Amino acid sequence: MNMINERLQSVRIEMQRLGLDALIVRTEDPHCSEYPANHWKFREYLSGFDGSQGILVITLQHAGLWVDSRYYIQAEQQTKDVSIDVFKDGLAGVPSYADWITYTLPSEATCGVDGFTIPYAEYKILRNKLSLFGIHIEYKVNIMDELFLEREDLPLNDILEMDYSLNQLTRAEKVALVRKEMLRINATHYLVSSLDSIAWLMNMRGTDVEFNPVFYAYMIVTATEEHLYIDPHKLTSVISRRLDEEGIKVSLYSHFEKNISNLPSGSRVMFDPDKTNARNVLSLPASVYKIEQQCIIEQIKAVKTVNEISHIESAHIRDGHAMVKLLYWLSKEYESGAQLTELGVAEKLHEIRSREQLFISESFGSISAFGKNGAIIHYEPTDSSNAPINGNGFLLLDTGAQYADGTTDITRTIALGDVELQSAIDYTLVLKGHIALAKAIFPEETHASQLDTLARMAMWNHCIDYGHGTGHGVGFFLNVHEGPQRIGKRDNGSVMKAGMITSNEPGIYREGRWGVRIENLMVCEEAGRSSFGNFLKHRILTICPIDKNPILIDMLTDEEIQWLNDYHKIVFNTLSPLFDGDELVWLRDATDAISR
Amino acid sequence: MNMINERLQSVRIEMQRLGLDALIVRTEDPHCSEYPANHWKFREYLSGFDGSQGILVITLQHAGLWVDSRYYIQAEQQTKDVSIDVFKDGLAGVPSYADWITYTLPSEATCGVDGFTIPYAEYKILRNKLSLFGIHIEYKVNIMDELFLEREDLPLNDILEMDYSLNQLTRAEKVALVRKEMLRINATHYLVSSLDSIAWLMNMRGTDVEFNPVFYAYMIVTATEEHLYIDPHKLTSVISRRLDEEGIKVSLYSHFEKNISNLPSGSRVMFDPDKTNARNVLSLPASVYKIEQQCIIEQIKAVKTVNEISHIESAHIRDGHAMVKLLYWLSKEYESGAQLTELGVAEKLHEIRSREQLFISESFGSISAFGKNGAIIHYEPTDSSNAPINGNGFLLLDTGAQYADGTTDITRTIALGDVELQSAIDYTLVLKGHIALAKAIFPEETHASQLDTLARMAMWNHCIDYGHGTGHGVGFFLNVHEGPQRIGKRDNGSVMKAGMITSNEPGIYREGRWGVRIENLMVCEEAGRSSFGNFLKHRILTICPIDKNPILIDMLTDEEIQWLNDYHKIVFNTLSPLFDGDELVWLRDATDAISR
Repeated sequence: MNMINERLQSVRIEMQRLGLDALIVRTEDPHCSEYPANHWKFREYLSGFDGSQGILVITLQHAGLWVDSRYYIQAEQQTKDVSIDVFKDGLAGVPSYADWITYTLPSEATCGVDGFTIPYAEYKILRNKLSLFGIHIEYKVNIMDELFLEREDLPLNDILEMDYSLNQLTRAEKVALVRKEMLRINATHYLVSSLDSIAWLMNMRGTDVEFNPVFYAYMIVTATEEHLYIDPHKLTSVISRRLDEEGIKVSLYSHFEKNISNLPSGSRVMFDPDKTNARNVLSLPASVYKIEQQCIIEQIKAVKTVNEISHIESAHIRDGHAMVKLLYWLSKEYESGAQLTELGVAEKLHEIRSREQLFISESFGSISAFGKNGAIIHYEPTDSSNAPINGNGFLLLDTGAQYADGTTDITRTIALGDVELQSAIDYTLVLKGHIALAKAIFPEETHASQLDTLARMAMWNHCIDYGHGTGHGVGFFLNVHEGPQRIGKRDNGSVMKAGMITSNEPGIYREGRWGVRIENLMVCEEAGRSSFGNFLKHRILTICPIDKNPILIDMLTDEEIQWLNDYHKIVFNTLSPLFDGDELVWLRDATDAISR
Repeated sequence: MNMINERLQSVRIEMQRLGLDALIVRTEDPHCSEYPANHWKFREYLSGFDGSQGILVITLQHAGLWVDSRYYIQAEQQTKDVSIDVFKDGLAGVPSYADWITYTLPSEATCGVDGFTIPYAEYKILRNKLSLFGIHIEYKVNIMDELFLEREDLPLNDILEMDYSLNQLTRAEKVALVRKEMLRINATHYLVSSLDSIAWLMNMRGTDVEFNPVFYAYMIVTATEEHLYIDPHKLTSVISRRLDEEGIKVSLYSHFEKNISNLPSGSRVMFDPDKTNARNVLSLPASVYKIEQQCIIEQIKAVKTVNEISHIESAHIRDGHAMVKLLYWLSKEYESGAQLTELGVAEKLHEIRSREQLFISESFGSISAFGKNGAIIHYEPTDSSNAPINGNGFLLLDTGAQYADGTTDITRTIALGDVELQSAIDYTLVLKGHIALAKAIFPEETHASQLDTLARMAMWNHCIDYGHGTGHGVGFFLNVHEGPQRIGKRDNGSVMKAGMITSNEPGIYREGRWGVRIENLMVCEEAGRSSFGNFLKHRILTICPIDKNPILIDMLTDEEIQWLNDYHKIVFNTLSPLFDGDELVWLRDATDAISR
């Protein structure tokens, strides 16, 4: 019996002891983080599947893993030797994990979940669904302490204050913005769980989670107090003193649950039900009003200040400089017939980027995928998968960096060798979608999901689609994925506002053949005012050539050709002063105008 | 003091007697109908505003009327002499009616609403919001009986069974489809409130509401029973006998509330929280499970059967025949300098349509708006507003009909005389939006709201937008507006499915100048299958020329010109056998291909 099957067996023995007929093991930490610290990666430990999303359900007889379309291929591969069935969420006829539980368990059965690992909103839906079938839910299940062997400790890494020469708003100014919203909503207490919201509000950064410069903490903001719950070992004496001077109270991280369970009767406690875990919410006393409200800080921090945008622009120029150096190196190495590998390219890019000023780290695990690996949407090369780059094919490079003055995220698909006709059609359709979104003018407060269609309509016309979102918000030296705006098929209620930074990344993936994606970050700006209201548009932040080789020019309209040439002119004008010699020649070629 | 102010005064006296600090007067009847019978038009009686949507809030000192963008102009006009402030929902900075109540009333105040006139979902949101500010809500307020003077009785009109030669599904077949869904959701009781859902399930039609062929009734479906709550005077003896033979139980309409308040403990009662009034839901016993679920029947009936579609196509050909006769007549009268008026055109169209086979009535109040009246989105000419049609301008004609075999809805904007350049630009932008939606290919289950952007992107590019939805479902000899699909800016969760019939009606409105709208109905069909899934497209049902005179052909792409010429070819080929002489000549001219 292999290791994963043994672990599942231990879980089942414990489930029987606890009287559980099913156990839901989720991906989140208690802060509903997209990327939790290793301390919380119990789902990965139990299933062997290491994607960033996925829900494992274990019954005494079965185990199922629910993944979205980004992970259809990867989940199958990583669980092929264990007794776990993969359920592909979103495909017709595939039941949701909650539906599957109602099919599988009899009435009066009990389903367990660790309430710290499930957002309250999701918990409520699950509880209501199971109750209709007479299935009980137990949310105080914590078997990680017992069964998660060799579990890493919760990180105690030091925290850094942001460099105040960046001229961001002070903590006091940010708290004032938050209080203004609290007043509007008539909330007395605001529970802040999201790690990036806390990092933003405190102007502090950490290293507790790979790639995301956050630290584990909770906060409570009231009309008069800011209360930070954090392990004190994480605070330097300088920071501690400064917080003390500013009147910010500090308590132990572990005291948060007890403190919120003692909030005064009649308090009006605001929290984001999608960003606050069920265990925390259910520990609130019955005598307080619960105000479910989309995270106020998320809303405020998404709209970057003029200062922030100017720093981010500067970070993007450095990142573009590194990307051009990498692409030049790649083209020369490939031409010379050198032994290239996916990991080798990613490592070279790291080496180049880390020489850029203010570089901190990558902003997520680099995707360097050649040929058919490009069709695995969240492929990260490992020592075992690492494919050689030779012959003809697309190299899909989706990477990004944290700089002390900005966060980047860029995807380029590079044609190496000859280009197959169908792959050129796919590439051109992705480019058309990318341009349609980049060029769009739209009314202020347009729901982000409304823009999604623009990126897809060209490929829809060929009966092609992709199974991921088109755009996500990006933080200011903070998480590379942040809300509220999300350009995708599903409307999450978020609206576009001037100052938001959003990615534009349509793609096409043909399993076993190739993947194409083209991604730039964009900042939202005013486009004009008319009697119909205010209109917005995007300006591109990412400064790096888009490979022209696979483009079928006859599929582009004149306006699309013009857009590409205009963009490349900006790239050349911005970056050319930083290059000379062969690199400059390469940049000029890469950004030369195309024409019919 | 005018009549409206006197009525508000009477309401305030009654509010004081009842201890109410505010009263919400809504538009809905107890079935959450879009168009209620006159019996329920209390908001119109109290405000003088007769639009199809609007919420009146009366406090002891103030009165406010909340309307959406369709009614901004009309609401101002109709309330200009009374003490009611108009709030334009959707404009930046305009508080919602609920927010306004929280600003206006002190803590511990009481706000009343007739629970029969507010959907349960909306009631819950309102109650939660008010409770945060310590404002009580009283939902058992019924002051209509007392204060709605000269109120019409609830209609007792006879009911007709649908003609079975149309080969629709039988009642038993429809109920079986409903039960299958109930089983999936594990519901024991399904409360049906929507009048069109009941009409569909019972294969019966009524005349209780103008334009909508529905009748007042409730239903409860269980695993074994169908229970119709209706005034027995409405049933002919033939229908009564047939219902009895089929085992369908009939009870008094007025007994519904009492019966649901006595449902057995442990029942799992399903209802649509957006289509069921708060009073009904709150009368359910605490011992039943409440299952909030989008109306099952609405979902089923939206997907038309092959038989239904073929009848609807036939109705559209007759409607197109009538429209062409009208447009021919209009062009001749205008050329000859006859005295035309908005009402005159609407009446002429009625006269022509009513000669078509199976014609029953209009499907909504005809919009015949010349010149600046076209900018009032839901303008209906009345004896007092009726404008003469002379000089240059657009005539916007948005009309539709109920035939025994289908429901139609069509908008044409006709250029009379010379066309101003800006109005031609607007017309062409609307046409481009119309075509983009009509031509689109999109994945099965695409959310309807995702298609909305297609109709707007051309005009957005000119900083132009419109404040209404782009498409609504249409019934089969049933309501001209039906759900679930709605192509609009806000995602209501509805998805596009083959068999759905949906309108396509972008527009541009310039206050005081003109309005443009072009509307066809379309049926959704399969477009193709690929490794990316199943794809859908639309086929046009409406058969009537689109005015070519105001088109600026240089603003159209080759594909758009091709689409228009292809559509006009279908119109000519379908209708030309029905015409001869001058009408045929006119039709040929109107459908001739355009070219650069």
